[in-house]
Amino acid sequence: MTANTTNSTSSTNTTITTCRTFQTAPAAVPRDDTAKYLRSGLTAEGFQAPDWLVPDLEDGTALDMKSEGLENVCDLVPDHDFPGEIWPRVQWSYDDEGFREQGRREIDTLLAELGTKIDGVVVPKVGRRADVERALTAVADAESDAGLQDGSIDLSVIVETARARSDLREIARLGADSRLTALVFGPVDYTAELGGRDLGDGRPQWDGLLEAMSNEASANDLLAIGGPFDDLFRERSGVTIYNADGYADQVEREARIGLDGSWSLYPKQTIQANRIHMPTATELERDVHRIEAFNEAKAAGTGAVTIDGQMVDEATFKNFRNTVETVRAIHRTRPEQTTELYDDGVLKRALDLDVSYR
Amino acid sequence: MTANTTNSTSSTNTTITTCRTFQTAPAAVPRDDTAKYLRSGLTAEGFQAPDWLVPDLEDGTALDMKSEGLENVCDLVPDHDFPGEIWPRVQWSYDDEGFREQGRREIDTLLAELGTKIDGVVVPKVGRRADVERALTAVADAESDAGLQDGSIDLSVIVETARARSDLREIARLGADSRLTALVFGPVDYTAELGGRDLGDGRPQWDGLLEAMSNEASANDLLAIGGPFDDLFRERSGVTIYNADGYADQVEREARIGLDGSWSLYPKQTIQANRIHMPTATELERDVHRIEAFNEAKAAGTGAVTIDGQMVDEATFKNFRNTVETVRAIHRTRPEQTTELYDDGVLKRALDLDVSYR
Amino acid sequence: MTANTTNSTSSTNTTITTCRTFQTAPAAVPRDDTAKYLRSGLTAEGFQAPDWLVPDLEDGTALDMKSEGLENVCDLVPDHDFPGEIWPRVQWSYDDEGFREQGRREIDTLLAELGTKIDGVVVPKVGRRADVERALTAVADAESDAGLQDGSIDLSVIVETARARSDLREIARLGADSRLTALVFGPVDYTAELGGRDLGDGRPQWDGLLEAMSNEASANDLLAIGGPFDDLFRERSGVTIYNADGYADQVEREARIGLDGSWSLYPKQTIQANRIHMPTATELERDVHRIEAFNEAKAAGTGAVTIDGQMVDEATFKNFRNTVETVRAIHRTRPEQTTELYDDGVLKRALDLDVSYR
Repeated sequence: MTANTTNSTSSTNTTITTCRTFQTAPAAVPRDDTAKYLRSGLTAEGFQAPDWLVPDLEDGTALDMKSEGLENVCDLVPDHDFPGEIWPRVQWSYDDEGFREQGRREIDTLLAELGTKIDGVVVPKVGRRADVERALTAVADAESDAGLQDGSIDLSVIVETARARSDLREIARLGADSRLTALVFGPVDYTAELGGRDLGDGRPQWDGLLEAMSNEASANDLLAIGGPFDDLFRERSGVTIYNADGYADQVEREARIGLDGSWSLYPKQTIQANRIHMPTATELERDVHRIEAFNEAKAAGTGAVTIDGQMVDEATFKNFRNTVETVRAIHRTRPEQTTELYDDGVLKRALDLDVSYR
Repeated sequence: MTANTTNSTSSTNTTITTCRTFQTAPAAVPRDDTAKYLRSGLTAEGFQAPDWLVPDLEDGTALDMKSEGLENVCDLVPDHDFPGEIWPRVQWSYDDEGFREQGRREIDTLLAELGTKIDGVVVPKVGRRADVERALTAVADAESDAGLQDGSIDLSVIVETARARSDLREIARLGADSRLTALVFGPVDYTAELGGRDLGDGRPQWDGLLEAMSNEASANDLLAIGGPFDDLFRERSGVTIYNADGYADQVEREARIGLDGSWSLYPKQTIQANRIHMPTATELERDVHRIEAFNEAKAAGTGAVTIDGQMVDEATFKNFRNTVETVRAIHRTRPEQTTELYDDGVLKRALDLDVSYR
Repeated sequence: MTANTTNSTSSTNTTITTCRTFQTAPAAVPRDDTAKYLRSGLTAEGFQAPDWLVPDLEDGTALDMKSEGLENVCDLVPDHDFPGEIWPRVQWSYDDEGFREQGRREIDTLLAELGTKIDGVVVPKVGRRADVERALTAVADAESDAGLQDGSIDLSVIVETARARSDLREIARLGADSRLTALVFGPVDYTAELGGRDLGDGRPQWDGLLEAMSNEASANDLLAIGGPFDDLFRERSGVTIYNADGYADQVEREARIGLDGSWSLYPKQTIQANRIHMPTATELERDVHRIEAFNEAKAAGTGAVTIDGQMVDEATFKNFRNTVETVRAIHRTRPEQTTELYDDGVLKRALDLDVSYR
């Protein structure tokens, strides 16, 4: 859990942007109800509800349905009171001015029509830092044209080109002063651009890139989000089932190295990613207990604090606090998820706790 | 497959430099025919023929045979019409002016004697970016002294020092405006310089370095080539056999993450690396079929194109095109390999296909 | 083995700083003898004696014992003639001026009281390069106030924040002209800052960071040291034993990729890390033999030198020399360890050998 949770050692009330789940939904599909998946994302309930819903105007929507997709987004978003964040993905490409021009028009329309009913836009296929600066300018211009307050619409980028990976450190440093919010991995384009090959055991994992993305996000108070897992189903002896193991393995790998969230293509994936990027009931109970014990020892003035046989220094304390702050952030937008997962008493203690080290 | 295949989304006739195999051959060995291995490389046929032949004046040729090695290269290269590229490796070292001076003399001689009968020179043990710039200057000076056209002789460097790894991104950016062509990994020197140790399970893999090399090559239109595998043979119950599994495992690992080619020390290694860095017959047939189906759907104007149950967007399309463009590039220099591996009809369709997305 | 061993191809008498073991000892603990662990580190013998002893004023000493810890260090260090190096760890934090102020006071006191009885200070939780420069200034100021010669007290930093990892290359380049000596990994803080999670199979390994740390240390003549392993004991059927396998696995992983030393929390860990980061008796005998054979061939003027069936070029020669130079460096400070491990005759040959390639 990256953004704003770790760098201020004593603040207890920072607002954390939570994105356990980055769920894309095609903005238009060739069906009677072209907005079928978009509608379904906007009305999802319980653990199927993503933290971020990403209406997809790029690769998820066919070339001849782009304008219908844009209309769907502009029509449906205002009709639904979505508790998470809305982040449309527009068209873009670092090496194609035509795609960038379409992206700028989409951003203009979205901001003019929806204003702050959306939280930001997701820009794919960015190149080097200068290209991300172009995307920042496109958002700033559209914001100004739409009469919105400066900085009210944020930007997230998909890291899926060799140039963006090469400039990752420099791109992430834009986070300090700008509307940049999340770095999202795009493995399909990335693998194609590097010429990576599936020789029978799947796409490469790109461990180096993911570790760097987790680090640069943390170093610049950004979120880091993993890439889509498109092997949705698998067949066993003639029966096709949802590939729950494959997706959970990927999401757990992402959670281990500190990615804040995972990409979801499907409601069942959203359930899983929401759960994995959330402390377990046991973790919450354990860390609430540890912070309470630490606070008591601190109040009693005993200096060296040992809890469960382990001396608590600031480094270990940070881990306990991460758990509690993540739960608080989820509770603010998805209380139905926190109350379902956690015992009432523990949740209340987590919400009331003093989590400062000194 | 990196160089020039991925950044122009619609061109169908870019010239791709192919280097599936970077085969070094000692320029002189202590035998009756001191040019034995060099001659054998220049006359290799079928799948034993490498894309790049690298007459080695550096570590492969003993100290007291350097000048004989240089003579061998100057004598033999003009006598053979080698269909691939010729890239002599000269002496160099970022921390030893003596080696650099010998390298400069070798480059001068090679360019004066052979001109554009060679395609470039390979410079080992480069350090930080400034040292690579020294090597670029050495080539430019020799080119000018030999009366060759500016830019006619290229440069590839071996990444085998901590300083070159540290500056990898900055070195690769020289690719944009210069004669820099390939980044080649040198694991023996690199491991020695870092003090890495073989504790019974072989040299470290340096996964981070290889992933970065693949990325920086793609970001700057360079080629990325893996390092040599010197465990050529293995013994089993008293019988010594060619270590086909060990080498293929390494080459497949390199191909997966998008390295364009592998280092070969031996004709059987060349056969294997040529094959692994080449689409299989099944891959070519599948991707030709997919592009044909895409082109038909595009012509029929049906916008959303679904092939074999998968919606084709630009990202997936790039993967199909990579396959076809790699085969075309190999066919230009090694038609005996493409006609041996692929069915005539499929190969012809691959050569004629329109591979533009829009 | 990094520092100064690899970049000068012909020097045989460079002074190598050796740090196979970076053993922290709490400066004060809540016991009758608050200096128990510090004393025990200062008096350790044989293979239990670390190369570097790090009296810990930071996380190892409780908040209310900091000043007693500082007194213990100032009292005990002059009383013991520790043959390795003494490197107190002080308080610091890139994002907390309060911790930095305490750290500056601790550095001032240590240098005023102990002068060059200590070799340097270890500064934890550094951020970007500018923060490391602040730490360098703190040492320089204290040195000057204490009337010590400029550059007599060195600095090592713990890499345990996302910002330090992001700036690792830039921080390491301070090694060229400054007192910077070692880069040490701090996995607990680092994992907390990135939000990494233990999902049942331990903390992430951070392979990318460790590979980069090994490289940047080598590129800038610094030492690279692994992080602590705190899973000291394990239980099997009711019996608790020292976790010798867990620690050795970690130290071997570090040695393979060229880290110079490992962090030790415990005398048995020091024994193991001292042994693993030291050539085995077989390795020493083999490489002494190879260098002797090389020197004979060189004297006989036979140019191409083949030893044990392998042609010896400068790259392979470097590996042999690394072995011998590491043993020499250890012998200078810990002769009881080298004489215990190696056969007398071989050790004498190693100490007398000419290890220049040309």
